[in-house]
Amino acid sequence: MKLYIVGFGCGSRDGMTLEAEKAIKLSDLIIGYTTYTDILKKYFPEKTFLSTGMRMEKDRVKMALKSAESGKTTALVCSGDSVVYGMAGLAFEMSKDFTDVEIEVVAGVTAALSGSAVLGAPLTHDFAVISLSDLLTPPKKIEKRLKLAAQADFTIVIYNPSSRKRFDYLAKACKIMMNFKSPETVCGYVRNIGREGQNSKILTLAELAEENVDMFTTIFVGNSETAVIRGKMVTPRGYFNV
Amino acid sequence: MKLYIVGFGCGSRDGMTLEAEKAIKLSDLIIGYTTYTDILKKYFPEKTFLSTGMRMEKDRVKMALKSAESGKTTALVCSGDSVVYGMAGLAFEMSKDFTDVEIEVVAGVTAALSGSAVLGAPLTHDFAVISLSDLLTPPKKIEKRLKLAAQADFTIVIYNPSSRKRFDYLAKACKIMMNFKSPETVCGYVRNIGREGQNSKILTLAELAEENVDMFTTIFVGNSETAVIRGKMVTPRGYFNV
Repeated sequence: MKLYIVGFGCGSRDGMTLEAEKAIKLSDLIIGYTTYTDILKKYFPEKTFLSTGMRMEKDRVKMALKSAESGKTTALVCSGDSVVYGMAGLAFEMSKDFTDVEIEVVAGVTAALSGSAVLGAPLTHDFAVISLSDLLTPPKKIEKRLKLAAQADFTIVIYNPSSRKRFDYLAKACKIMMNFKSPETVCGYVRNIGREGQNSKILTLAELAEENVDMFTTIFVGNSETAVIRGKMVTPRGYFNV
Repeated sequence: MKLYIVGFGCGSRDGMTLEAEKAIKLSDLIIGYTTYTDILKKYFPEKTFLSTGMRMEKDRVKMALKSAESGKTTALVCSGDSVVYGMAGLAFEMSKDFTDVEIEVVAGVTAALSGSAVLGAPLTHDFAVISLSDLLTPPKKIEKRLKLAAQADFTIVIYNPSSRKRFDYLAKACKIMMNFKSPETVCGYVRNIGREGQNSKILTLAELAEENVDMFTTIFVGNSETAVIRGKMVTPRGYFNV
């Protein structure tokens, strides 16, 4: 009675860990959000998949727990990491009624890391990861975290920067951060990391506030020392005389 | 003239991405800190390795850039991710004199993610990553970041919590965080993630302040909602009626 919660990385075949590959191969049933099972079907055509649409997270987790309880080794798949804004937390919360099911979490390369590699090395020093989605988080809490993270001079990674309903959220977030970070702060973003149509851009925080990005974009706001070197976004660790 | 900066994950064979494996296989020379090349030698016995001791980061990066410039495809390897407190930043900084060398960064599963999977799901919501090492960062900056991250109610991941010289740094950090976080805050740590002798513990923030940990330990300090569920450290995302 085993449930794997598998983070399969950005979506490229090579971005997956060997452990994630093994967990998927060992599973009788693979359950996930449609967009993600569609990606995995290409890599594992011999496996059985079950998918549900957006905002069906609780149903998906329940299906996965029931499937594991029925004796099928099951993988609940998440893009990126299985914990970072992923399904592992919810699975543990809901597993109280499924105590026979053993849950194993398989970590994966979250967008903060795969996106960072595309831009260069923005995360070489301390950083914070914040989601702008207010579906499950009060907007005041998000604003407070943006403010304090900017004040702490963290490099800040922003997930879910936009959606149709939240088209102006990134601009608002940039304004909050500009109370503590210079408008010249080096920023970058990557869209469709590791997938078809991947593109990225390096720009200033003031420019970022004017930029239109979609929900498939991950944003990086540098710290006060972040610089552009050979066209890459680089945050120094602090080695002297480099 | 290619230099890969490769994050190979926590050190278990399975924790590596396919991309990291490919980059290492494609390389003529693999350069890294002795502890890490020793791990990789077991997995890739046919390859040529060159290692240097601790605090030789600049020499190591220079060797790697020179090796790539001489025409050898070279991999500079880092445990975890190649950017997060890794060598990629320094490599870009030092590459100004090696403009013919193409640098490709290969992301990997950093300890925040692999450790999180061991503990359960502590990073389901916004989080901050802070290193307590003051070799390259002024202590005041570290203290400021701890204070503001605690005030923001982030889950906080602490790297480099201790060393022989810095045996009391974790206790100090806990005291700073306890100005904003309850002493009952759920915390956890994992030692030797994915390697021989891996062990982990879940405890309160007050207990963590009294704990002896070593430099191979990664620390997780929950947010105000983090709970222990079925013996695991779980931060809820905020789904209702779970």
